[in-house]
Amino acid sequence: MKYILGIDGGGSKTTAILADETGKILGKGRGGASNYQTIGLENAGQAIKFAAAAAVEQAAENLSVSWADLEGSVAVVAGLAGADRPQDRERLRAALLAQMPVNPIGLRVEHDALVALAAATGNKPGIILIAGTGSIAFGIDRNGRQVRAGGWGPILGDEGSGYFIGRAALTAVLWEYDGRGKPTSLTKRITSYLQVTQPDEIVPLVYQGPLQRPEIARLAEIVLEEAAGGDEVSCRIIADAADHLVKLISAVLSRLDWCEPGIPAAGTGGLLQPENMLWTNIAKALAGTHPQVVFAPPMLPPELGAVLLGREMLDTAVGQEEFIANLRWSIEETSQS
Amino acid sequence: MKYILGIDGGGSKTTAILADETGKILGKGRGGASNYQTIGLENAGQAIKFAAAAAVEQAAENLSVSWADLEGSVAVVAGLAGADRPQDRERLRAALLAQMPVNPIGLRVEHDALVALAAATGNKPGIILIAGTGSIAFGIDRNGRQVRAGGWGPILGDEGSGYFIGRAALTAVLWEYDGRGKPTSLTKRITSYLQVTQPDEIVPLVYQGPLQRPEIARLAEIVLEEAAGGDEVSCRIIADAADHLVKLISAVLSRLDWCEPGIPAAGTGGLLQPENMLWTNIAKALAGTHPQVVFAPPMLPPELGAVLLGREMLDTAVGQEEFIANLRWSIEETSQS
Repeated sequence: MKYILGIDGGGSKTTAILADETGKILGKGRGGASNYQTIGLENAGQAIKFAAAAAVEQAAENLSVSWADLEGSVAVVAGLAGADRPQDRERLRAALLAQMPVNPIGLRVEHDALVALAAATGNKPGIILIAGTGSIAFGIDRNGRQVRAGGWGPILGDEGSGYFIGRAALTAVLWEYDGRGKPTSLTKRITSYLQVTQPDEIVPLVYQGPLQRPEIARLAEIVLEEAAGGDEVSCRIIADAADHLVKLISAVLSRLDWCEPGIPAAGTGGLLQPENMLWTNIAKALAGTHPQVVFAPPMLPPELGAVLLGREMLDTAVGQEEFIANLRWSIEETSQS
Repeated sequence: MKYILGIDGGGSKTTAILADETGKILGKGRGGASNYQTIGLENAGQAIKFAAAAAVEQAAENLSVSWADLEGSVAVVAGLAGADRPQDRERLRAALLAQMPVNPIGLRVEHDALVALAAATGNKPGIILIAGTGSIAFGIDRNGRQVRAGGWGPILGDEGSGYFIGRAALTAVLWEYDGRGKPTSLTKRITSYLQVTQPDEIVPLVYQGPLQRPEIARLAEIVLEEAAGGDEVSCRIIADAADHLVKLISAVLSRLDWCEPGIPAAGTGGLLQPENMLWTNIAKALAGTHPQVVFAPPMLPPELGAVLLGREMLDTAVGQEEFIANLRWSIEETSQS
C-alpha cells in the first residue's frame, strides 16, 4: 500500500491529512501557523512536523499504520501560505525534507491557493477566490498557466477580506463619531462587543491592545449580521468588499487564456459561505458581467486539495473520480467520529 | 524677566523653544519621538527633557540664560501627540512636572493639534488641517468648543495623509502588476526608488523589511511629482486624498457653532505645502462647497503655538500682536543663524 500526506499550512493553523492510495483518510492532525514569511522557516517546519506527527499518530491508533509503514511509500504534498515564489518553495522543500522522519516517494511544495484550487475543482482548471482573514484569487487555464491577483497582505491588499471588512466597520463607527459618517447600527453592536463606552476607546485597543488582525477580521461576522438586518452602512461595506472580490476574479479572468462559457470559479474561506450577503453580491455581479463563469462552493475542503494532488505522484489504480468520491465519503465519516 | 518653554512633541521628533516674555526666541532644541501612546510615558518624558535641555543650553551659550534663571519664572506649554483625552494629559503633566529641573510658574499640556491651531490662527478660533505622516482636522469656535475629526492612526484612519498616499501608490503598482489597475508611471518610479526589479518584491519590503510607516509616507512626494507630470493614477490618488482631507474639515465645520463667513482654516504638515496639487485640490473643493472658509497657510510654524499659548500664563505687558511679531522676527533670525 502507498500513502499520501497532505498538508495545508496557513497564517493561523496547519492541517495534515494522511490518506491511503484509494483516498481513504487514515488520520488528521493540526498544528500552529506555518507561513514562513511571517514566522520564519524553523517555526514553520516545526508546525508542519507537529501536524504530520498528529495525523500519523491517529492513523497508528485506529488503523495500525505507523511511520515505519510510510518509509519509502508516502507522497507528501504541502500547500503553504507564503510559498509564492519558486525560491520560497525550494527553501521550504529543503527544510521539510530535512525534518521528515521517513524518506518520501516525493515531496511537492505549492502555495496554498493552488492547493485550494485543486480541492475546489477536483484538480481541474478554473479559478479559486479565497476570502478569509486575507483575500486572493488564483486561476489555472487549460494550458496550465497560473495567474493570481491579490494576496498582498493587510497593509498592501487583502481587499474584500475579513480584515478589510472588520477594519471598515471600526472606521465606520469612528466616522459616525467624528461627524464624517452616517449613523450605523454597527456603533452599538461593536462598542458593546468590545466592551467600550465610547467609540474613541477602540483606538488604544487596536494600537496597544488585544485587537490584532485576526480579531479585527472576526468583526466581519457582525457586519454580515447588521447588513442582513438592513443597516445601510453595513450593506455598503459588504457591497464594497464584494466589488473588490469580483475585481480579483476579473483580473484573473482577463489574464487567463479562456474565452468559452463554463469557467468554474469557487468561493471559499471563512467569510465566503454560500448564500450569505457577500456570496450573493458576488454571484449577482458575476452573473451580470461575467456570465461565462460558474460560481459555486468548492468540491472538497481546501485541506483535501493536497491529498488529491498527492494521488498524481503515486502509481495507483484508483482513478481520480473514485479517489475524490472516497475522500468525500471518508472526510464525512472522520468528521462525525 | 519671565520665560516660556514651548514644546511640540510628535510621533517622530520633539521640538522645544525657549522664549522670553516679549516673544524673543533664546534657544531651540530637538529630541526624539514623544507620543507616549506608542513609546510609553518614560521615553516620552526623556525625549521632552532632552529637547528642553538643548534649548536651555543654546540660550545659555548665546544669551546667558540658564536653568537657574528659569526657577520660578518659566511657563511651560507642551503640545503633544497622543495627549487626546483629559486622563492622557493629566498623566503627562505629572510625568513632566517630576522631570522638570525647575519649578515652573505653570505647566499646560495640550494635544498637538490644539497647539498647531494656536500657531496657525495666532491663538484665535478657527480650524487646522494637519496632513503629514498622519491626518487630523481640529477646530475651536468662538464659544471655545473644541471639535476634532480624524487622527485615528494608520490602521483606523489617517485618510489623506502621507502614509495613505504612499500606501495607495504601492497598491496602485501591485494592481497594475496583477491586472486590477491601470498602467501608471508610479510603477517605474517606485520600483526604481525601492531598487526592486519586480513589483511583487515590494511585498517582503513592507512586511519584513525597511519599508515602515514613515518610509511609506515619504513615497507621497513621488506621487505628487507624477501627478504634476500628468500620470492619471497619481492624479486620482491625490484627488482622493484631497477629498478625504476636505471631509475632515467638513466634519469639523458641521459640528462647530459658526455660520457666518470668514472662518480661518489653515493647512499644515509635511504634505500640505501651499500650491502643491494636494493643496490646490483642497482649496478648490472648499471654495466650491464651503465658501465661508478662508483656507491659508498657518501664521506661525506649529512649534511656536506652544510659546504663544505660554504668553497667556505670564503677566506680561507685551500684547499678543506684538508678541507674535517678535516671534516671527526672531524665528527668522534664528533660522538664518
